[in-house]
Amino acid sequence: MTLNIEEMAAFCKKKGFVYRSSDIYGGFSGFWNLGPNGVELFNKVKQNWWKHFVQDREDIVGMDASIISHPKVWEASGHVSSFGDLILTTKKSKTKLRADHFIEEKLAIVADGLSAGEINNLVKKHNLTYKGEEFEEVKDFNLLFPTKVGAEESNSSIAYLRGETAQAMFTNFRLVADTTRQQLPFGIAQVGKCFRNEISPRDFLFRSREFTIAEFEYFIHPDEKKCSRLTKDQLALELNVLTAKTQEVGKSTLTTLTIKQMLSNKMLNEWHAHLLAEQWKWYIQLGLSEKNLKIREHMKTELSHYSSATFDFDYNFPFGSKEIGGIADRGQFDLNQHIKHSKKKLELFDEATQKKVIPKVIEPTFGMERIFLAVLFEAYHDDKKRENVVLKINKQLAPTYCAIFPLVKNKPEVSKKAQEVYESLRTCYSCVYDVSGTVGRRYARQDELGTPYCITIDFETLEDDAVTIRDRDSTKQERVPIKELREKLFSLYCS
Amino acid sequence: MTLNIEEMAAFCKKKGFVYRSSDIYGGFSGFWNLGPNGVELFNKVKQNWWKHFVQDREDIVGMDASIISHPKVWEASGHVSSFGDLILTTKKSKTKLRADHFIEEKLAIVADGLSAGEINNLVKKHNLTYKGEEFEEVKDFNLLFPTKVGAEESNSSIAYLRGETAQAMFTNFRLVADTTRQQLPFGIAQVGKCFRNEISPRDFLFRSREFTIAEFEYFIHPDEKKCSRLTKDQLALELNVLTAKTQEVGKSTLTTLTIKQMLSNKMLNEWHAHLLAEQWKWYIQLGLSEKNLKIREHMKTELSHYSSATFDFDYNFPFGSKEIGGIADRGQFDLNQHIKHSKKKLELFDEATQKKVIPKVIEPTFGMERIFLAVLFEAYHDDKKRENVVLKINKQLAPTYCAIFPLVKNKPEVSKKAQEVYESLRTCYSCVYDVSGTVGRRYARQDELGTPYCITIDFETLEDDAVTIRDRDSTKQERVPIKELREKLFSLYCS
Repeated sequence: MTLNIEEMAAFCKKKGFVYRSSDIYGGFSGFWNLGPNGVELFNKVKQNWWKHFVQDREDIVGMDASIISHPKVWEASGHVSSFGDLILTTKKSKTKLRADHFIEEKLAIVADGLSAGEINNLVKKHNLTYKGEEFEEVKDFNLLFPTKVGAEESNSSIAYLRGETAQAMFTNFRLVADTTRQQLPFGIAQVGKCFRNEISPRDFLFRSREFTIAEFEYFIHPDEKKCSRLTKDQLALELNVLTAKTQEVGKSTLTTLTIKQMLSNKMLNEWHAHLLAEQWKWYIQLGLSEKNLKIREHMKTELSHYSSATFDFDYNFPFGSKEIGGIADRGQFDLNQHIKHSKKKLELFDEATQKKVIPKVIEPTFGMERIFLAVLFEAYHDDKKRENVVLKINKQLAPTYCAIFPLVKNKPEVSKKAQEVYESLRTCYSCVYDVSGTVGRRYARQDELGTPYCITIDFETLEDDAVTIRDRDSTKQERVPIKELREKLFSLYCS
Repeated sequence: MTLNIEEMAAFCKKKGFVYRSSDIYGGFSGFWNLGPNGVELFNKVKQNWWKHFVQDREDIVGMDASIISHPKVWEASGHVSSFGDLILTTKKSKTKLRADHFIEEKLAIVADGLSAGEINNLVKKHNLTYKGEEFEEVKDFNLLFPTKVGAEESNSSIAYLRGETAQAMFTNFRLVADTTRQQLPFGIAQVGKCFRNEISPRDFLFRSREFTIAEFEYFIHPDEKKCSRLTKDQLALELNVLTAKTQEVGKSTLTTLTIKQMLSNKMLNEWHAHLLAEQWKWYIQLGLSEKNLKIREHMKTELSHYSSATFDFDYNFPFGSKEIGGIADRGQFDLNQHIKHSKKKLELFDEATQKKVIPKVIEPTFGMERIFLAVLFEAYHDDKKRENVVLKINKQLAPTYCAIFPLVKNKPEVSKKAQEVYESLRTCYSCVYDVSGTVGRRYARQDELGTPYCITIDFETLEDDAVTIRDRDSTKQERVPIKELREKLFSLYCS
C-alpha cells in the first residue's frame, strides 16, 4: 500500500471507479458518484454482505425502509435534539471547524464525546487558534438534513433524511416479528443510503455527506446470558485489540486477545462476542488482512450513557487507522425511546416464561464506502516488474470476472472463435471483450481493474480448440479446452 | 386478479412484503418500507433488470450517482424552474388537489400537459367545485425536495434530492466515455431512489414520494439512422398499441402493431424501435402478461418541446391502466442544456467522420415499485380449491426458492435428515426451514409467499434417502433422491 488518499482518488477516477459528483459544475463537496467499475465492485460488496448476514442465516431477516420517515422517529431517537458535531468558528473570517477533529489534531487526545464546556476549556487552556485567529464559543451543529414534505406551509411538514439505518429496524420491530414468525433471538438487517451534513467532508469517500450503511439490530431476550450460536472456532479466534485500559494510560499498543479471553476479561457478553467474531470474519473473507485490522474498545468516557460496551473496527489506511465499522450493546434504550414516544407496545411474548418482554439489542454497523475503500487499498499493488498496477481483489468482488482477447484483430477465423467463447461465457460471468492494442497492453488494462482471468484465443485455437487462461496474480498461463472452460472458470471462482 | 389496491396493501402488510413507513407513529403519507419478503422480491427485480440491460449487454455500462448533487444540475435540467404540478386550492378550507388528476376525473379527458390558463378556463367553463367549495386561481408547485448543505447560512447551499436518475448520466457522460473506452452508440444505466413531493400520494406504492427508477440513456451519433442491433425477431414483435391518432379522436381502442409497422408508420426511429422492443420483452420475461400490457403513444399536445416521440408502457391495474415505464426520444436536448450551463464540451470524437459530435439520446425509464406492484397483481391467485392464495410469481424472483419441511416434529431422525438437507441447499438457494403446523398449513404458507418448491422429509426418507418435491403451481409431487436434489432444483430454476 504505497499510495496516499489523493492518489487513490485519482486512480479511482482514471479507472472508472469513482467520480466527483457534479464534476462538470466543479464538484460538490462531500458527494461522490460510482462509475461503471465502481458500481459493480460496490454492488458485489453489498450483495456479499447481504448473503452472509441475511440469506445464509435463518435468524436474520432483511428490510428496506424509506430514507424519509415521520419526524417523530428522529425526535424519539434523540437525533433532532442532539446529533451533532460541536463547531469552532473563528472570530474574524468565520471559518468553521469540527471541534473534536481540531482538538484531536492539535492536542493528540481522543476528543470524541467531549462536551461543549470541555472543548471551550481546552481551547482557553492551550490558547488554541486557527491561522492566527481566535475562536468564538463552541456551537452545536445538527447533522440531519432537513426537508419539507407536502404542500402545506405549517411546521409539521419538516422531515429529515435519515442519518442512520438503525431507527427503521426499531420502529418496524413488531411488524417484522408479527409477519415473519421470527422468535427471540433474531435480527433485522438493512443496507442503504444515509445522509449527514458533515462540516468538512474529507479524505475522499471516507468522510462524505451521503454514504451507505449496512447494519443489523439483533434482538435478544433481556434475561438471556448464554449465546447458543457461539462456537468453539469463534472462542478461539485471535483479534488485534486496542483495549480501553491501554488507551486510558495514553498508549496505543495492540493486544492479541481471543474471544474467550475478551469474555473472561468481561469486556463484552456472549451475544456481543458471537456477533463481533462474525463481523471480524466477514472483513477477513472479503480480503482485508488481519495485520491491517484492529478492534478498538471504547473507553468509559466515550460510551453513550445507554451502551455498556462498544467496539470500533479500524482499518489501517495511509491517513491513519480509521473506523470502518463498529458493534455496540445498546440494551433496551432504543425500543424504550420508541415505546415512550409512540405509546405502542414494542414487546414480544416469550413462550418459555409466558411473559411479555422488551428485548435488548446488539448493533453491528458497517460503513460500506469505507469498506469499499479499504478493499481497494488492500488490493492495490504497484507491480514494478510488470510496470503496471495490479488490483489483487477478491475474485468474487472483481467488477469483471474474465476478459476475452482474440490474439490478432484482423483474422476473421480467430475473431469468430473469440466471439463464440465470449457469447458462451457472458451469460454466466461478467465478461469483457477486448481487441485493442497488444496482448501485453490488454493484460495490463485488466490487471488495473482487478480482472482475475484473461482468456486468449490464438491461431493454435483453430487447431486444438483450446484457449489460454492467464491468472492475474501469478501471471501463470494454462491451456484449457474450450469445452471445459465454463466449468474450469466456475471451479476457479469457488476456490 | 380479483383484489383491489387496498386489499393488495393489506395482503402485502400481512405477508411481510410492504409496511407503511413510521407505522407506530401513524404512518407518513407517500412513504413505504419493504419488509423481509418485499426486500427479497424487490432486490431480485432490480438485479434482473441490471443483468438484462447492463451486465448482459456489451454496449451499456452502469453507474450509481449521489442522490444530492450540485444545484446547478437541476437548474440546467429545467427542474428548478419547472418540475411541477399545478395545484387547485379550495377557497375556504384550503384543500389542495393536483389539477391534472382532478380535471381528468371530473371531465374524463387527458389533462397532462395543460397550462395553468387552460386549467383555469376549464374550471370556470364547467363550474368545477370540490365538496361544494370554489377554487382559487391554479398555482405552480415544484416537486423537488429542497435541503441545505453545509454549515453556511447563505443561499448557495440549497440543494435538491434528485427527482429522477437521468441527469447524472448526462453530467457524467464524458467521464464515462473517457474512462471506459465505450464508443458511440452506447448507454449508461442507473437504478436508484428518487424523490418527488407529490401533492396527494395515493394508490399504495403506485404514487409515492420516495421511489426507485431504473433508467438508461442511450447515446447515438446524431446522423445515425440505421440501428445495427435491430433484429428480425424484434421487427416481427407484436405489441398492443394505443396510437396518438386513436386518442386524438377521443377513442381508446388498441391496435396490434408490429415493430416493423410502427417503423413504416414513422411512429419512431430504428434505435427507438430496438430499445422499445427490448423494454417490452423485459416486462414479458419478468412475468407480466401481454394482455395486461399496452404501449401508449404520446399525442402531439403531450410531447415535451424537445421530444420527437414518447411512449408509455401501461399495466392493467385494478384501478386502471397506468404507466409503469416509458421510452422517450430526447434528441440532444439534455446534453445541450448542460453544455450551456457548465460551459463544458459534452461531445465525443467520431473516428469515421473525424469530427466532434453531440450525440442524440433515447431514454427508457422503469418505475420499479410500480413494476413490483404489477408483478404482485399478476401473480396473485385466490385458489378456491386450495382455500388459500397462491402467488404464481416468476421462480427466479420469488423471495424464497424452496422450503424444507420435516414431516413430523418430534422424530429426531427425521429432523436431523431435514436439517442436513436444509444445510446442503441454503448455500445455493434461498431456503426456509419450517416445522410449524400440518404439512398442508405449511404448503399454504409458502404458496402465499410464492415459494416455487416445498421439500418434505418423511419416514420413507430414512429408508430410500429421497424426498418429495412439491410444485407450487401444479401441486404435483415428485420423489427425488437427496443426492440429485441440488442439480434437480437448479434445472428447475433455469426451466
